Amino acid sequence: MQAVDFNSDMGEGFGPWTIGDGVDNELMGFISSANIATGFHAGDPSTMRRTVEHAKRLGVAIGAHPGFRDLVGFGRRHINAPAQELVDDMLYQLGALRELARVQGVALQHIKPHGALYMHLARDEEAALLLVENLQRLEPELLLYCMPGSVIWRIATDLGQPVIREFYADREYDLSGSIVFTRNVRAYDPIQVSERVLRACQLGVVRTVEGEDLAIEFDSICLHSDTPGALALVEATRRALDDACIEVRSPR
Amino acid sequence: MQAVDFNSDMGEGFGPWTIGDGVDNELMGFISSANIATGFHAGDPSTMRRTVEHAKRLGVAIGAHPGFRDLVGFGRRHINAPAQELVDDMLYQLGALRELARVQGVALQHIKPHGALYMHLARDEEAALLLVENLQRLEPELLLYCMPGSVIWRIATDLGQPVIREFYADREYDLSGSIVFTRNVRAYDPIQVSERVLRACQLGVVRTVEGEDLAIEFDSICLHSDTPGALALVEATRRALDDACIEVRSPR
Amino acid sequence: MQAVDFNSDMGEGFGPWTIGDGVDNELMGFISSANIATGFHAGDPSTMRRTVEHAKRLGVAIGAHPGFRDLVGFGRRHINAPAQELVDDMLYQLGALRELARVQGVALQHIKPHGALYMHLARDEEAALLLVENLQRLEPELLLYCMPGSVIWRIATDLGQPVIREFYADREYDLSGSIVFTRNVRAYDPIQVSERVLRACQLGVVRTVEGEDLAIEFDSICLHSDTPGALALVEATRRALDDACIEVRSPR
Amino acid sequence: MQAVDFNSDMGEGFGPWTIGDGVDNELMGFISSANIATGFHAGDPSTMRRTVEHAKRLGVAIGAHPGFRDLVGFGRRHINAPAQELVDDMLYQLGALRELARVQGVALQHIKPHGALYMHLARDEEAALLLVENLQRLEPELLLYCMPGSVIWRIATDLGQPVIREFYADREYDLSGSIVFTRNVRAYDPIQVSERVLRACQLGVVRTVEGEDLAIEFDSICLHSDTPGALALVEATRRALDDACIEVRSPR
Repeated sequence: MQAVDFNSDMGEGFGPWTIGDGVDNELMGFISSANIATGFHAGDPSTMRRTVEHAKRLGVAIGAHPGFRDLVGFGRRHINAPAQELVDDMLYQLGALRELARVQGVALQHIKPHGALYMHLARDEEAALLLVENLQRLEPELLLYCMPGSVIWRIATDLGQPVIREFYADREYDLSGSIVFTRNVRAYDPIQVSERVLRACQLGVVRTVEGEDLAIEFDSICLHSDTPGALALVEATRRALDDACIEVRSPR
Repeated sequence: MQAVDFNSDMGEGFGPWTIGDGVDNELMGFISSANIATGFHAGDPSTMRRTVEHAKRLGVAIGAHPGFRDLVGFGRRHINAPAQELVDDMLYQLGALRELARVQGVALQHIKPHGALYMHLARDEEAALLLVENLQRLEPELLLYCMPGSVIWRIATDLGQPVIREFYADREYDLSGSIVFTRNVRAYDPIQVSERVLRACQLGVVRTVEGEDLAIEFDSICLHSDTPGALALVEATRRALDDACIEVRSPR
Repeated sequence: MQAVDFNSDMGEGFGPWTIGDGVDNELMGFISSANIATGFHAGDPSTMRRTVEHAKRLGVAIGAHPGFRDLVGFGRRHINAPAQELVDDMLYQLGALRELARVQGVALQHIKPHGALYMHLARDEEAALLLVENLQRLEPELLLYCMPGSVIWRIATDLGQPVIREFYADREYDLSGSIVFTRNVRAYDPIQVSERVLRACQLGVVRTVEGEDLAIEFDSICLHSDTPGALALVEATRRALDDACIEVRSPR
Repeated sequence: MQAVDFNSDMGEGFGPWTIGDGVDNELMGFISSANIATGFHAGDPSTMRRTVEHAKRLGVAIGAHPGFRDLVGFGRRHINAPAQELVDDMLYQLGALRELARVQGVALQHIKPHGALYMHLARDEEAALLLVENLQRLEPELLLYCMPGSVIWRIATDLGQPVIREFYADREYDLSGSIVFTRNVRAYDPIQVSERVLRACQLGVVRTVEGEDLAIEFDSICLHSDTPGALALVEATRRALDDACIEVRSPR
């Protein structure tokens, strides 16, 4: 692998509040694609404008990061809503960010659903299909970030919406290729994370919770900005990539 | 006057709730321009999509109707917010509607701020200027509905953003040209309202609360969909215009 | 049966919006217990105060009707939240209504969770147990409205929290005793509904969707205020009860 | 002065978000009264429960800290709402906290409106009177924290609601006794702040922005938990009070 995208969630504050270590500004310097929260699970319009501004200044590509309408739960709680309603909510959020980017002369590169909505679309045929159909009508070149092998990945691939497959630097995999969620996210070690990423880039494998290697393919490394110690993880990962002469650049 | 625009606020429900007499669907048949609520004071994404759909079917032009972030107060309470924050909120809402319209192949004709935000922009130099500057950068042909003589009207005219001046069919004027707000909106009589509109169209005058006529100029008649008995008022007004051979058509 | 409680959901507007036919004020005259929306799925503080006032004037007992935090979905969408969070949300809402009632000299008679939260507690052991334990600590005499045979009914009965078992006048039962939800609620006929209620009160049976009778026990008749034609249904039911000399009175 | 109350705002996170330096837990160890955010400007039910728990453990008295319904603006933006609506909102919030405290066996000591609502009640005759009248009916012993000389202070004093007059350790005064708001809150120096507080306690004066001393009377020292460096300020102030043998204790 000669080049790879590096994405992270940005602008996930709300009004006066910050999340995680509040290091968005620093993180932005190490990534190539920013997923910008669009108001339903985090992110208010002024935070969105400032985040676009900051990404533009640093040459980072941007995308919409729509979530369930759930501020208090940060979009991490599944809400049992009809597919049409969810897609309407996502288009609403997508357009909101597009406008705040457009006024600054910036175009959107991608869309990446957030949290429980990301997982919902990875499994729910009806919602995933309806979203992709709407994207096809709206903007058939908009990149869709997703989990390789998921329902939405398959549908997008079938219908011709371009996908960016993610590798999760700060999540555990099992041998089925699924992400293993653990209630208490353990503190990650920058060295371990960066070595894991490098191995994935260079050898195309990740060590699973079962202790065996799993072959993986991906176009983008994802590291969550609200993981404890995120800045150190992102910095170490970026340095390791640089040292290995793997260029970090956005797909576009 | 040979032709005039006729606008009304549409899609002002929220989730399961309706407002006024709940007659949006019928009203849409009589107007030429719909101001669609964009989620901050009313209107959720699914309601927005359906309202765009309905307007498209009936050939009614659409615009964004952004308000203060205030569902419980329906955007009628002034909120003391910085100009930049308000403009960010308006662009967010504008883009949200634009996307839900675009997926249906419909372009936005206009923007018209709602309620207390409309009044705020009619008076506040800083917010009005910042909004118009942003519209100039975004879309210098987007029509801005406003009150003739207001601060935002003057700024838009100066900077070249095209304006549509409104005549309020269901509000009282005083001799200064201001709208007189009365706490208890009295029930309006369809005959009176339609005669008042006709007089405004044909003679360019409106009878003020002081009992004298005031000369007025306007491009669009506004009748509020949540005025009690709105449907009868809109129907009677439309019939009077038709009978007088004044064509009802959107500015675009 | 000589007497029975008759409950309905009240105060389910929000800000300027009304729901269903907007006939709360009239409905209140026919029931004995009002379930007052407490702000998370519907009901703002001023609506709550006015609803308490109205119930007090008519001698109707009141209870809290807490829901999921979901205005746009009216608390009808299940949200995947931890038990502790849901119980905290319910206590918050319970206390909010209690205060607005207390300032008017009115005590709460009961609590009845709303919509998807009602169904969640009917099935979820952990949330139901945590709620009942909290009620035991707070107010061991507060009546809990629930579905006979449900998980929360069993737990409340075991722990000694007094329960009021409901009969749903405007919902269909199947032979297992479950409510059958149909997407399109058909218009109900006042005569049919009132005869169904009378049969339930006098014979202790309800005709199921399978066409056979099911034996039922209950303390309160529930009729939803947002069922289309609710006022006619409630009126007819009340008249039938009066004519049959079955007194309508609250449990307290 | 032999003893004084020391109050600070607590529980001002929302869902996953924290505010200021996120040092509530540490701050709680130095104060005697906690103003707990009640959900409208900050604070969700679970945060409220945990904050009560923590205050209970440390023997800190608690009060409700209701604000305008304005999460994104953190209750710092004035909203033009009728007095009755504001009082209903405050009672709703007061009751919500009371219930979450009551289930833990804790009684409320006080109420202190937040931010723009605090300032509104300091000036607005109608809202202040309506609030105090409601408190008189609800709980005539509930302490009301306020600014000495303000409208609400005068009304509460006249009607017999007990007041606690505040001295603001981290705000500037002018010679009229008013607080001077500056856009960019300058970083405060722990030594300066603690000396200022000590001077106020021992000599009953504060140095104003005009450079002259102003005589002040107060019952409680207020230091804002979201002032940058709040923890150091609170610690230094508490140490200075301890060293001067001025006991820090809640009014009750």
